[in-house]
Amino acid sequence: MTSSASTRQPEIRKDAVFNRFVIFSPARSRRPSDFKSHSPTKSPNPNPKHLSCPFCLGREHDCAPEIFRIPRDTDDWKIRVIENLYPAVRRDLEPSSCCEGVVTGFGFHDVVIETPVHGIHLPDLSQAEVGEVVLAYKERVCQLAKNGLLEYVQVFKNYGASAGASMTHSHSQIIGLPLVPPTVSARLDSLKEVFDKSGKCGLCEASSEDILINESNYFLAIVPFAASFPFEVWIVPREHTSYFHDLNEQKAMDFGGLLKLILTKLSKQLNDPPYNFMIHSSPFHLPPSHLPFAHWFMQIVPQLNVVGGFEIGSGCYINPVFPEDAAKVLREVHCTIN
Amino acid sequence: MTSSASTRQPEIRKDAVFNRFVIFSPARSRRPSDFKSHSPTKSPNPNPKHLSCPFCLGREHDCAPEIFRIPRDTDDWKIRVIENLYPAVRRDLEPSSCCEGVVTGFGFHDVVIETPVHGIHLPDLSQAEVGEVVLAYKERVCQLAKNGLLEYVQVFKNYGASAGASMTHSHSQIIGLPLVPPTVSARLDSLKEVFDKSGKCGLCEASSEDILINESNYFLAIVPFAASFPFEVWIVPREHTSYFHDLNEQKAMDFGGLLKLILTKLSKQLNDPPYNFMIHSSPFHLPPSHLPFAHWFMQIVPQLNVVGGFEIGSGCYINPVFPEDAAKVLREVHCTIN
Repeated sequence: MTSSASTRQPEIRKDAVFNRFVIFSPARSRRPSDFKSHSPTKSPNPNPKHLSCPFCLGREHDCAPEIFRIPRDTDDWKIRVIENLYPAVRRDLEPSSCCEGVVTGFGFHDVVIETPVHGIHLPDLSQAEVGEVVLAYKERVCQLAKNGLLEYVQVFKNYGASAGASMTHSHSQIIGLPLVPPTVSARLDSLKEVFDKSGKCGLCEASSEDILINESNYFLAIVPFAASFPFEVWIVPREHTSYFHDLNEQKAMDFGGLLKLILTKLSKQLNDPPYNFMIHSSPFHLPPSHLPFAHWFMQIVPQLNVVGGFEIGSGCYINPVFPEDAAKVLREVHCTIN
Repeated sequence: MTSSASTRQPEIRKDAVFNRFVIFSPARSRRPSDFKSHSPTKSPNPNPKHLSCPFCLGREHDCAPEIFRIPRDTDDWKIRVIENLYPAVRRDLEPSSCCEGVVTGFGFHDVVIETPVHGIHLPDLSQAEVGEVVLAYKERVCQLAKNGLLEYVQVFKNYGASAGASMTHSHSQIIGLPLVPPTVSARLDSLKEVFDKSGKCGLCEASSEDILINESNYFLAIVPFAASFPFEVWIVPREHTSYFHDLNEQKAMDFGGLLKLILTKLSKQLNDPPYNFMIHSSPFHLPPSHLPFAHWFMQIVPQLNVVGGFEIGSGCYINPVFPEDAAKVLREVHCTIN
């Protein structure tokens, strides 16, 4: 692919979902296939059971309170959802209305321990086990949706210290907020603009052959047309759905397989980079008029370059790898998953 | 100050300039005064003249073309403004109008070499010399403003590899874009909302005793009320002005002194952290109706923590240090500057 990259000229593309411009600048790039992480995340000598880790099987008493475990009522759990011991927001505070730009830090901050075994990472789990982690997210989001005080829930995972993970034991996090973040509203406004112009949902239309990596029965994995980050991947439901937590067991298992495949490909092709993933779902109390253009998806961002002053200042990103090239590199890597 | 931090409860504050929520969460914090960088930027054995550095005096032929130097017509320059050898956007491309969300990567990407001497950093320069760097920014932005094809110019500095700097020789960058980034429009929209509600410019009103660090004749240095990042600092003109490049020589010298002071304080108090600074000016072709609420400022962000999946996903930031506490720490550190 690299001959095309070397002759490409820089382009500025509009990301119609996040409403930002991205500069694709091959002059600042090595070949996409050489764009590997210089800080691989896995320990070279993984310790199967780290004695000081409170997320390990048998160390449950060192953790903040448990919310639920899977399977229920067994010491031999596979997944635990617990409270975060150092929560960003606190469930024990009184929620308040906004006064001079301040509200109390009410909210929920939970942790999903994805495996009892230290040193096992999410894509090391079987397809069905990753599906069960997805179902644990769904179950917890459904519980939070029933709390009338919450407006938005962010499910996310930080993998690797430079992506923000403070624990190496495989886990993800869920934060429930009493407000809709303006960035989330802006995403919906952008999708509304696309819908108003074209009569179509921007995410139903987001895929093309060039940027497709893999597809499953219910999901597509693409490098978005105006990816902000090199090798950024979106996993998008084929069917137009506003809420992540509406997915059923069958779709969760299907999603788990595709997620495992993409994480395995990123790890293999990019030297086990640190990464973040985020589930972009809809705010809980979405007006029905928003349903035609609110489409949930997962964004996966490997941490391969640094966000600097230009990005912070202008909100524009510079991406040295064209999405079509990144998709080709990820499409063609050979992986068998179980 | 730390006793107050330990008893504080988390708060969610609205940043009315960048239109985002910031969660202040002391539970996730050490004491603000302990919040030092673990990756100080300066080499322990600074080399006064690095032989392979093209930004050093005498290596001008290794650089991309020069735009101007200060002083003019001398080999013994103090500041050089040059083209970026690996530009994100290219001045030699034809600008194009937006077609299917894509424009050519036309634009200008320049570098300001702040000193001829390797190993001298911006706050090591005298107050007057920092002022001259500010004047070099101004002069180059004025030149770009005359190019009818540009809409917005971002002046920024990345200090330290983890803040995005690829060269250690002290420099900053200027990118001129043929479009107004949506983030910049959103900032003006937020300030318009403040103005429409209160009849006042949000930045004229941004300061209070609690969050003030230092002031000079023409500028205030504050930790903003809803700082996204620990020890983030804004330098704000006291006088309501929309455009950075309108500042005159006297104000540039005054600004240079305050900038030097703040960078020195951050370095001293936080163990020479990597940082970014960005000048948030107005788009070139601002309608006159925007002038009452468009107020330029500089944002300085020390890189002390990691932006993770929650921030990327929700656009909300988690800041473990309350602005009042950060301002106190920075106000009280003793610095004499020349």
